[in-house]
Amino acid sequence: MNDIYRKRLDTLQDTLSRNGFDACLIMQEENRRYLSGFTGEDNSVDESAGALLIGPKGLILATDSRFELHAIHEAPLFDVHVYKTGLDKDLPELLDRVGASRVAFEETRVSVGRFNAFAAALKKSGSTAELVAHEDMTAPMRAIKSADEIQTMREALAIAEAAFSAVKANLTPGLTEKAIAWEMEKEMRSRGADGLSFPTIVASGPNAALPHAVPGDRKVAPGEPLLIDWGSRYNGYCSDSTRTVVLGSPCDTFKRVFDTLFEAQARAIDAICDGASGKTVDAVARGFIEQTFPDGFGHGLGHGVGLEIHEAPRLSYLKDHTLKAGMVVTVEPGIYLPEWGGIRLENMVLVTENGAEVLNTLDYRDHIVAI
Amino acid sequence: MNDIYRKRLDTLQDTLSRNGFDACLIMQEENRRYLSGFTGEDNSVDESAGALLIGPKGLILATDSRFELHAIHEAPLFDVHVYKTGLDKDLPELLDRVGASRVAFEETRVSVGRFNAFAAALKKSGSTAELVAHEDMTAPMRAIKSADEIQTMREALAIAEAAFSAVKANLTPGLTEKAIAWEMEKEMRSRGADGLSFPTIVASGPNAALPHAVPGDRKVAPGEPLLIDWGSRYNGYCSDSTRTVVLGSPCDTFKRVFDTLFEAQARAIDAICDGASGKTVDAVARGFIEQTFPDGFGHGLGHGVGLEIHEAPRLSYLKDHTLKAGMVVTVEPGIYLPEWGGIRLENMVLVTENGAEVLNTLDYRDHIVAI
Repeated sequence: MNDIYRKRLDTLQDTLSRNGFDACLIMQEENRRYLSGFTGEDNSVDESAGALLIGPKGLILATDSRFELHAIHEAPLFDVHVYKTGLDKDLPELLDRVGASRVAFEETRVSVGRFNAFAAALKKSGSTAELVAHEDMTAPMRAIKSADEIQTMREALAIAEAAFSAVKANLTPGLTEKAIAWEMEKEMRSRGADGLSFPTIVASGPNAALPHAVPGDRKVAPGEPLLIDWGSRYNGYCSDSTRTVVLGSPCDTFKRVFDTLFEAQARAIDAICDGASGKTVDAVARGFIEQTFPDGFGHGLGHGVGLEIHEAPRLSYLKDHTLKAGMVVTVEPGIYLPEWGGIRLENMVLVTENGAEVLNTLDYRDHIVAI
Repeated sequence: MNDIYRKRLDTLQDTLSRNGFDACLIMQEENRRYLSGFTGEDNSVDESAGALLIGPKGLILATDSRFELHAIHEAPLFDVHVYKTGLDKDLPELLDRVGASRVAFEETRVSVGRFNAFAAALKKSGSTAELVAHEDMTAPMRAIKSADEIQTMREALAIAEAAFSAVKANLTPGLTEKAIAWEMEKEMRSRGADGLSFPTIVASGPNAALPHAVPGDRKVAPGEPLLIDWGSRYNGYCSDSTRTVVLGSPCDTFKRVFDTLFEAQARAIDAICDGASGKTVDAVARGFIEQTFPDGFGHGLGHGVGLEIHEAPRLSYLKDHTLKAGMVVTVEPGIYLPEWGGIRLENMVLVTENGAEVLNTLDYRDHIVAI
């Protein structure tokens, strides 16, 4: 395992150096784990399980006493430093120890208040180290998955799919969205998921017209769309899938919307390969859908998945990313018709040299649930 | 309900004005909910369900299309604005609409990257509004609970305690920490909890010496401490309790540690009343424990609980806070003996005019589980 982290750290140090830095401070939870192996979780915006200090003279994992033993065990490449009253006070000494002078930090993970506290501590100590906000330099590395990471994601997905099949077998009119979401969670957890990748979406009838509906007390009824968007986390890695089923017989609208999405998704996946433009792939699906449903598809086509549920790259009409072999992205076209409801179909797709491999294994058109 | 929010907004506007502001931007999830009723959740550091803009000429809740319907329904005092490509671009216009000139933002919730994006958008638009980092002005308001909030917290606690009793009834040697944690969660969720206040801690034997142990595959055995620290969230409000039990007969160390903590906790609670110093209350428990276990108690005695699991005030040796009637704090002395394990006892306590009311109702000395 140490070789993996050493290679990642080398790549990061190259990137730092190309950007004029000799060191960095890593506070983003998933980056911390990716670069060190340390699995401590922050649990909230205002709390932190620690920081990595990466510099020319050394590697330090700074954390508090709660995490000391885990840190030592999980991150053998790093010297573990335990701070007593927060990172601020110890930061100047730690930066000095790793030989840092120009230090990049993740601009989206450090709050203005925390940055001010860091800066004050550096000033007070007379340190000459300079902290500079920078976009996340680990994210582009994380976007391309190794064979081991892909294997872990397949396992996360297998848990999620088995859970869905178990819940689907017991779907019946009258269950509430909330109850179905809870069954999904229990089935994932009992199959070994660390947890959910995100709160499960279960949206029935008109609620399915809200792309991020929160499961409520509405009871599912025959003939209407029942959209389930869910994922499990396994060894830190996320899965993300959506299926939309119908109890009993689908109406004509359901059939038309479903068939359109099925075709749109297939075309988008056909357009994926190493070097393809995310914007173009999005446009393939979007263009096809808009021929029949001009206003139906409001959100982006997909996003990268990994240690985070949403990470680089995006398949979006707003911003272009170039796809590369080893990326794992969702392809999730949806059509939402206010009042009636909506359908979304989402698979996870691995970008390969010559094309794409769908990682999901659930039968795709098995969406009619007999009642 | 509108009266509650109007009153809170009035109080906040007074505070703003006393601090030289005419407006504020609220991005912290629990503050947003407390001031508006909007329950949208951010789910991760990098994502946001929206922001409140509170100024002399109006109240705006800015969010994205996912949350539009919820926002309109839940926050009737606010004009709901839906942004298409993030808050940055629309911010200048929105600040203008609420008549903002000097705008406080929560320094711990806004990242350096986001602040820079806001500042760039303001500059580009020629806006004269000024964004100023400030400590959270809503937190001190939230620290003092209304009768309705206290009632909701009692309900959260009742769910948590019923779950504990159910799990305790089935405790048996050989269960893993992980399995017990999962049983706790299922029991809380099936009793109506929105979710957990935090990941349940189940730590057995030597693991109980780690104040924030993560449940693992260790099997619980007779005669050793089994520490469970758990909480449920109900209508947004958290509970937080710890019990340490023993399967079969406690050893002498267990008895001595338990009795010391029981007495330390009772003395600390006796010291709580409106106007008391949090530092003094901490010292009462700490002084008593240190007579027998000089190095046993490393963390603070307690913290406020409410919409967040950790909020103002603190009962701590590091920083002093004055307790006020209506605050709800945990009182959680612990003694941790490396190798052997640890015990922590935690109750939730309401500060009253003349003293304190323990909100927990579980029998406290019922810690020996027959096997």
